[in-house]
Amino acid sequence: MESLKQRILQEGKIISPEVLKVDGFINHQLDPQLLMAIGVEFARRFAYSHVNKILTIEASGIAPAVMTGYCMGIPVIFAKKEKPSTMDNPYVAEVHSFTKEKDYTIVTGREYLKPGDKVLCIDDFLAYGSAAMALSSLIEQAGAHLAGMGFVIEKAFQQGGELLRAKGIHVESLARIESLEGGVVTFCE
Amino acid sequence: MESLKQRILQEGKIISPEVLKVDGFINHQLDPQLLMAIGVEFARRFAYSHVNKILTIEASGIAPAVMTGYCMGIPVIFAKKEKPSTMDNPYVAEVHSFTKEKDYTIVTGREYLKPGDKVLCIDDFLAYGSAAMALSSLIEQAGAHLAGMGFVIEKAFQQGGELLRAKGIHVESLARIESLEGGVVTFCE
Repeated sequence: MESLKQRILQEGKIISPEVLKVDGFINHQLDPQLLMAIGVEFARRFAYSHVNKILTIEASGIAPAVMTGYCMGIPVIFAKKEKPSTMDNPYVAEVHSFTKEKDYTIVTGREYLKPGDKVLCIDDFLAYGSAAMALSSLIEQAGAHLAGMGFVIEKAFQQGGELLRAKGIHVESLARIESLEGGVVTFCE
Repeated sequence: MESLKQRILQEGKIISPEVLKVDGFINHQLDPQLLMAIGVEFARRFAYSHVNKILTIEASGIAPAVMTGYCMGIPVIFAKKEKPSTMDNPYVAEVHSFTKEKDYTIVTGREYLKPGDKVLCIDDFLAYGSAAMALSSLIEQAGAHLAGMGFVIEKAFQQGGELLRAKGIHVESLARIESLEGGVVTFCE
């Protein structure tokens, strides 16, 4: 997605050869017009997947997911990082964040993911795939079907994309980064 | 906002005379079409406020805020509940959650809130106003101007609305709830 790549080149900050900060339009400040364009693009790429629900993780996944849900006309569930006191017996999965060097739990209420649901997962970043595997686990626990996964930015030099594609999952990433070496963003061809 | 009120009557769950759960369309599962209608309505109500930025809090504020930002054509900042390791010297404010009975900190990066900004705050619920006062504090710390506050649902039987309006803040709530007594949602008016 060319407009996204241009924005990353203009405003992305390379913190280390592993970490790209996009706080100016995705992770802290949001550009709603860009996010709508992202939603349109995901809707186009998954148009033939016949999904009826989108699943994401709070907080940075919510904006791209809700725009995609708007474009596809389907509801969005965001998995929570903390179990609310009013949520009984949720589906639970573990995530390891390599950036934050810690583990956390994500939960989803049973009433919103059902057997028969065809689910599209949307998230901001694909790195090692830990969050994606946790979303996939929530879907499996519900007896629902994972129809595809869409990521705004894929760090293709980490293993997540390979892992998910090797499992036969339909993965679409709007900007695939080959390397952040030398303080330069290099996109995959 | 009539469509929102109808949805609350149809799907809201009254947990106690103080707590209304709207997990089916606002707080866990999101209805993107309803959220866009909410964005349109906030944009209409704050059309003459000349705001150039929206401020909200992760996670439930993000969806209504990004739709409002889309309709108004302006960026959205979401205050974070945890300081990222890559964020230096942020603006910080304390929030007390009465529902969760605990305190937490919210932070915003200095580069996104500036003196001269005219800021609209958007959030899902207005109850005692603790989160709203914390957002107001972040804006003040930045030397920016608070132009108004929009809430999807106001629990008018708690003190937040009174507190904010007494300070002269322009407050707009799309559904104002007078009472949840007797397991019934009664709207103001």
